[in-house]
Amino acid sequence: MDLVIGIDIGGTKTKIGLVNEHGECYEKTFFRTKEYPNLDNYLDKIKSTVDELLDNFGKDANIIGCGIGAPNASSKNGTIESASNLAWKGSVPLVKLLKQRLDMPIRIMNDASAAALGEMLFGGAKNMTDFIVITLGTGFGAGIVANGQLIDGFDGFAGELGHVDMTIGDGRLTGLGVKGGLEAYVSATGLKRTVMYMQSKYLVDSRFRDIAYNDLHGEDITQAAEEGDEIALKAFDYTARIMAQALANFTAFTQPEAFILMGGLTNSGKWIMTPLEKYFNGFLLDVYKGKVKLLHSAMEGKTAAICGAAALIWENEKKKQV
Amino acid sequence: MDLVIGIDIGGTKTKIGLVNEHGECYEKTFFRTKEYPNLDNYLDKIKSTVDELLDNFGKDANIIGCGIGAPNASSKNGTIESASNLAWKGSVPLVKLLKQRLDMPIRIMNDASAAALGEMLFGGAKNMTDFIVITLGTGFGAGIVANGQLIDGFDGFAGELGHVDMTIGDGRLTGLGVKGGLEAYVSATGLKRTVMYMQSKYLVDSRFRDIAYNDLHGEDITQAAEEGDEIALKAFDYTARIMAQALANFTAFTQPEAFILMGGLTNSGKWIMTPLEKYFNGFLLDVYKGKVKLLHSAMEGKTAAICGAAALIWENEKKKQV
Repeated sequence: MDLVIGIDIGGTKTKIGLVNEHGECYEKTFFRTKEYPNLDNYLDKIKSTVDELLDNFGKDANIIGCGIGAPNASSKNGTIESASNLAWKGSVPLVKLLKQRLDMPIRIMNDASAAALGEMLFGGAKNMTDFIVITLGTGFGAGIVANGQLIDGFDGFAGELGHVDMTIGDGRLTGLGVKGGLEAYVSATGLKRTVMYMQSKYLVDSRFRDIAYNDLHGEDITQAAEEGDEIALKAFDYTARIMAQALANFTAFTQPEAFILMGGLTNSGKWIMTPLEKYFNGFLLDVYKGKVKLLHSAMEGKTAAICGAAALIWENEKKKQV
Repeated sequence: MDLVIGIDIGGTKTKIGLVNEHGECYEKTFFRTKEYPNLDNYLDKIKSTVDELLDNFGKDANIIGCGIGAPNASSKNGTIESASNLAWKGSVPLVKLLKQRLDMPIRIMNDASAAALGEMLFGGAKNMTDFIVITLGTGFGAGIVANGQLIDGFDGFAGELGHVDMTIGDGRLTGLGVKGGLEAYVSATGLKRTVMYMQSKYLVDSRFRDIAYNDLHGEDITQAAEEGDEIALKAFDYTARIMAQALANFTAFTQPEAFILMGGLTNSGKWIMTPLEKYFNGFLLDVYKGKVKLLHSAMEGKTAAICGAAALIWENEKKKQV
């Protein structure tokens, strides 16, 4: 069976799996990224993990390549550049170094861009030529597809929309120091920050009055909203409004048919989606109104990121067949 | 000789010319758009103007098509949709109606997108795959090229960046009612508005204290800057700073190799470009710093818009030859 190794490099976990041409993931596992601050050790760990997966798979596997999704990755240079939540500093030539251990075609891409390729090959964007995947995890990522192609940019850093300067609200700083930057508001972390902000702004009673920032988790905020907690409801509304404004602005750029949302914040379901939909059409220019869908990823789940990474190789295979 | 009819539909003038495959414009003329508020009369006038140009050209001309650049044009639908500075309201099926008078391939496109195609075929972007043309006239237009292709969007309305909500400064309204929208600040009109604003903010003496808004022209502001007029200098600095912030945001989207600037505001030369360059790198994320060029259009001049429109047809011809 032809298989691709899909690797999702995250600040917390590195997930690895074997993925067939239909986006089905066989044999998957993960290890903790932070346990391998030394790059050589990390790459050796990837190699040994891949070997284990192939052993476990047992059957005849024809590995045709390795696709990697990672934060701050440049597809054109094959590097990860100063990713703020990874231990390795500067420009890391990951593709080149991994090739010394895995002798096969290797491609790397920004994780949100890989997710967009995954949606196009295996997920909810199979028939779309213009859409944007938004990942709402620790940060805010974007993978942009226009004219049926992923937008890379001049040297592979397109789609860094989390650091777009919205000059909004109280001008929070992002991790990269952008004042009023989007992901300081619209991300799992942004929502937590907004729960703190709402406690500063209002005096209403709330379960959050007894929870410290570091003890606060996304699920708590969703749970609180279910129970009618005013701070939680205000926080979702505030986040959704800024997100709606941002997505309306992004629409003016490439006019996507849909935004496909994934990541931790989307697990809050209707608490984020209902106000988002309410505000979104209000911010859109008339020429776009009613034309832009807000969708949940159909690939959401534990293997979505692995399959997105594997899509980098499968996409190339499909091009060869044309 | 193979020639394309290039038509630039503007709120003030409609320019028509005959353009060869190298972007050289033979026989050109214009008439005033506003003199033909009736659409049928307008289309008849285009037909008779084209006939005149062909008569004047004299030599054997093989007309292979007609390209049109127009505000609010949808390339996918062949229409102009509710353009705020044109007399015809609603959705105008211009391509269909013009085909009844000119029996040839006809394509229409947003004027800034047509300008981008023109730069790619004939101008300063011949070797670029990722760039954005910014037109700074009465409004703010953008033509986006990524992966070597023009970005159309889902139904042809990509690039409406003049109405991106910057939530900046004093929250001016654009012509479409967007509060804090970019073109209310960054355009020839925006600069005039800023000259008024600076007179409200400061009490310094200025030649503009004796000039009413409707008597104010872009050249006056450039001239005043040459003479050291403080209001003029502050107006350019304010405009350039907002423009720098916007272009830095746009960079995060498609990471262009260059922004190519054209239109009335760029005639102010160094008065806008020097502060723009000063602020631009400051707003860019580190990953983009020093990689994005700010260029003047090499096609600037009276025939640039006509050649850009003609590029719609020449681009298709070149694709056929591949």
